[in-house]
Amino acid sequence: MADQYAHSGDTKRPTEIPAIRWEEPPEGPVLVLLDQTRLPAEEVELVCTDASALVEAIRSLAVRGAPLLGIAGAYGVALAAVRGFEVDDAAAALESARPTAVNLAVGVRRAHSAYQEELARTGDPRAAAAAALAAARRLHQEDAEASARMAEHGLALLTELLPGGGHRILTHCNTGSLVSGGEGTAFAVALAAHRAGQLRRLWVDETRPLLQGARLTAYEAARSGMAYTLLTDNAAGSLFAAGEVDAVLIGADRIAADGSVANKVGSYPLAVLARYHHVPFIVVAPVTTVDPGTPDGSAIEVEQRPGHEITEITAPQVPVAGAEAGGGIPVAPLGTQAYNPAFDVTPPELVTAIVTEEGVVSPVTAEGLAELCAKARSAPAG
Amino acid sequence: MADQYAHSGDTKRPTEIPAIRWEEPPEGPVLVLLDQTRLPAEEVELVCTDASALVEAIRSLAVRGAPLLGIAGAYGVALAAVRGFEVDDAAAALESARPTAVNLAVGVRRAHSAYQEELARTGDPRAAAAAALAAARRLHQEDAEASARMAEHGLALLTELLPGGGHRILTHCNTGSLVSGGEGTAFAVALAAHRAGQLRRLWVDETRPLLQGARLTAYEAARSGMAYTLLTDNAAGSLFAAGEVDAVLIGADRIAADGSVANKVGSYPLAVLARYHHVPFIVVAPVTTVDPGTPDGSAIEVEQRPGHEITEITAPQVPVAGAEAGGGIPVAPLGTQAYNPAFDVTPPELVTAIVTEEGVVSPVTAEGLAELCAKARSAPAG
Repeated sequence: MADQYAHSGDTKRPTEIPAIRWEEPPEGPVLVLLDQTRLPAEEVELVCTDASALVEAIRSLAVRGAPLLGIAGAYGVALAAVRGFEVDDAAAALESARPTAVNLAVGVRRAHSAYQEELARTGDPRAAAAAALAAARRLHQEDAEASARMAEHGLALLTELLPGGGHRILTHCNTGSLVSGGEGTAFAVALAAHRAGQLRRLWVDETRPLLQGARLTAYEAARSGMAYTLLTDNAAGSLFAAGEVDAVLIGADRIAADGSVANKVGSYPLAVLARYHHVPFIVVAPVTTVDPGTPDGSAIEVEQRPGHEITEITAPQVPVAGAEAGGGIPVAPLGTQAYNPAFDVTPPELVTAIVTEEGVVSPVTAEGLAELCAKARSAPAG
Repeated sequence: MADQYAHSGDTKRPTEIPAIRWEEPPEGPVLVLLDQTRLPAEEVELVCTDASALVEAIRSLAVRGAPLLGIAGAYGVALAAVRGFEVDDAAAALESARPTAVNLAVGVRRAHSAYQEELARTGDPRAAAAAALAAARRLHQEDAEASARMAEHGLALLTELLPGGGHRILTHCNTGSLVSGGEGTAFAVALAAHRAGQLRRLWVDETRPLLQGARLTAYEAARSGMAYTLLTDNAAGSLFAAGEVDAVLIGADRIAADGSVANKVGSYPLAVLARYHHVPFIVVAPVTTVDPGTPDGSAIEVEQRPGHEITEITAPQVPVAGAEAGGGIPVAPLGTQAYNPAFDVTPPELVTAIVTEEGVVSPVTAEGLAELCAKARSAPAG
């Protein structure tokens, strides 16, 4: 079950409320999530006491963003273990809560393996639960550190590609501190550029249908004091044509072994526009986003989301998603069928570089990616 | 001033209520507009008794779409003349109500010239007003006939380019009977394909920020019994990548002498995607859309619209536009700056063909367009 903590009337900002935290009140451990479907209008926290509440929070996008989903998945396994629920079932349900985000599965498996190994070694479920929780906390900490290193590598790449400085960067969806244990992926690079006095403007795609750009990225940009401008996704073409975009920076939900990048729907059209206008298209993601088990783009399963996200209009105050009903105001005629893929896939030939915490792959090749993954395995962070 | 007629509780559909009509009730002539900002939720008519009410209706997008704006502009001049207002001032205000749509200026000038010529000839303001009204009615009738001929030429072109039939056509914004004295421009071609059993699916871009695709094109498609599917503008890339788009059909707000096409923002990215995927990109517009006075794309003034169209969410029940205030629910942080061009410009090299009532120009060249315009001038329709 999930309860709600509302932060009304106080002055806290979302980035001061962690996107995720583990708490141990007297009535038992809980996982507390900042409900991102309510931002920026309201700051409400969801308190999960079991894995099924977390599965629902993941499905409804209350918690979202590839790295954060991994952390959430790991804590979810720990929550089931610590509270004495069926751990294998919880892990299976969490892993399949959203099909495209590989980090979710990686996070779930990491805590689950820690649990299973400790259980096999000691036969003690409480020791195994503690091991799962320790694995989740470690993943959380590693992710914060990875953010910082991605920002560093990304800023160096920008400086190399665009030596003049004064970058005008276009980004899509939300990739900041709300998706991460740290400052995020693509957004963290833009933030590093801002702090280095190198960011002239951040162009923020609103990111239909759920408006993560307008709601979340604009919020994080405003808080950080960046010069930013919001636009509809389809206005990006005009910016490219006017020569107003120096680089595109996006995150990734899954990167196939060949370098194909699954990310929020709307990323692929930006990649085609960037190529047509000779603008670098840069993907920023932790190494865990690379899935060696997915050979190429065609093997990436793309989640189809409910049509009411498009056929109805909802305000941030109203939870925007949910498998059943929209609860919004119909904008299209009743009965309208919608095509609503959550992600699209950009082939490696359109990606200028993939920036990870272990370094940069450019040009994007299967060999380059495999090398990076091997490096990450041989010298685990944290 | 504009009054409202509400059609509540009846079963009329928008396409049965004309988008525009001239009426002469006992209290004096009026121009009646179907308020397109309220569709599909409500059918409300705006009754304009002077040009300034019509200017406001044009600015707020209650009446919109290039051909219909021309008709509205012409009736607006007639309204001022018939009611004894200052005609030159009314014409100037109407002509500049929206800067990008050339049809508006053309329609205004046509009625204005008819007025001035008759006044010069007879010195009788009432005869001059009657001439302005006759010019507006003629334009209205010509536009209906032009729609039918564009549909015919467009369908022939589709059959030539895609001989297999079973077309899957992507369209953007609204170009049907709500923008025209007839069945529209690009939509009229899709409708002709549908009637000929050649349309497999109409992909309808929702068309942010004002959602003319979701609200109006989906409505017209549903009423016509077409197989259609709604998508966010940024999901079009996925359809192209999957090979699900056989042709793009769009309208135009202004076509420069070199064939550059100004149309609803989001058209240019579709043109780039179409080129990248070797899909025909077809523009359908009456010859009046071609402006020989605009040499090329860089000379097209693109209207910038208020930021609140992006930073706030509004429902169809609430008038969505207006220069002053949004009246919607804020979705982005307060103070967020927005980039909100109403149009973008597609260069002629990305346009496969321009379909007009006088025939098809393909490839798109200045010479081909000039020839077509000469043909139109030498044999005026209607």
